[in-house]
Amino acid sequence: MDDILQCIHHGGIAVDDMEAGRALYRDTLGLKPGLHRLMMERGVEVQFFDLPGARIELLAPRGESSSIAKFLADRGPGLHHICYEVNDIHAALATLTGRGLRAIDTEPRDGAEGNLVAFLHPRSAGGVLIELQQK
Amino acid sequence: MDDILQCIHHGGIAVDDMEAGRALYRDTLGLKPGLHRLMMERGVEVQFFDLPGARIELLAPRGESSSIAKFLADRGPGLHHICYEVNDIHAALATLTGRGLRAIDTEPRDGAEGNLVAFLHPRSAGGVLIELQQK
Repeated sequence: MDDILQCIHHGGIAVDDMEAGRALYRDTLGLKPGLHRLMMERGVEVQFFDLPGARIELLAPRGESSSIAKFLADRGPGLHHICYEVNDIHAALATLTGRGLRAIDTEPRDGAEGNLVAFLHPRSAGGVLIELQQK
Repeated sequence: MDDILQCIHHGGIAVDDMEAGRALYRDTLGLKPGLHRLMMERGVEVQFFDLPGARIELLAPRGESSSIAKFLADRGPGLHHICYEVNDIHAALATLTGRGLRAIDTEPRDGAEGNLVAFLHPRSAGGVLIELQQK
């Protein structure tokens, strides 16, 4: 055991349609909408729902080259990734790739909240797309 | 917004092989193993990993009639469900099914930690298998 992964920051869920997803999480499940962002360069619209501790992030495809569109075509809507908070994303990425995990982002980039993020490949992590987010 | 879902209790991840899953989450990702339970009547072996806030639950198939074995055959290993804590599982189930969610367990049952749990059908919840767990 070590302390690379501090806590779960959020669970990411792919939705076909953001309006319907927002209605489900806000009106049916009763969660409180938080940060909303359109990230056209990433082909994604995100909507957070705030909870004490780990949050929910809905992701809907936007534009042409969207990894979310590809995910939806392959697997349909549903659980997409899990994001862990780390204290030092460069150190975490170096340690985890040194232990055999494969980085999708070899260099951390800006995430939806403005913090640095990096994704690890599900094929190297038991089928789970893992996001790391700098605290 | 209301306060039915208090927080995320854990993210559930289906694994083919518990030993390999445990090695990945303990040795590679550095998480601390928590509760381990064999629930033969449910066809599942579970291993929690403890984190501040929401936890990780690995689920491996055991025995003949295992919903985890079916999930693995259909979708492969990966994210399986998300579990929310609720204050009153009977009230939560009544409210959420009244809003159109479909219960897999119409009557709550004992979960891995001994608390009452109930699952909601992914077809009624944007493709996400949702577990409710009584606090």
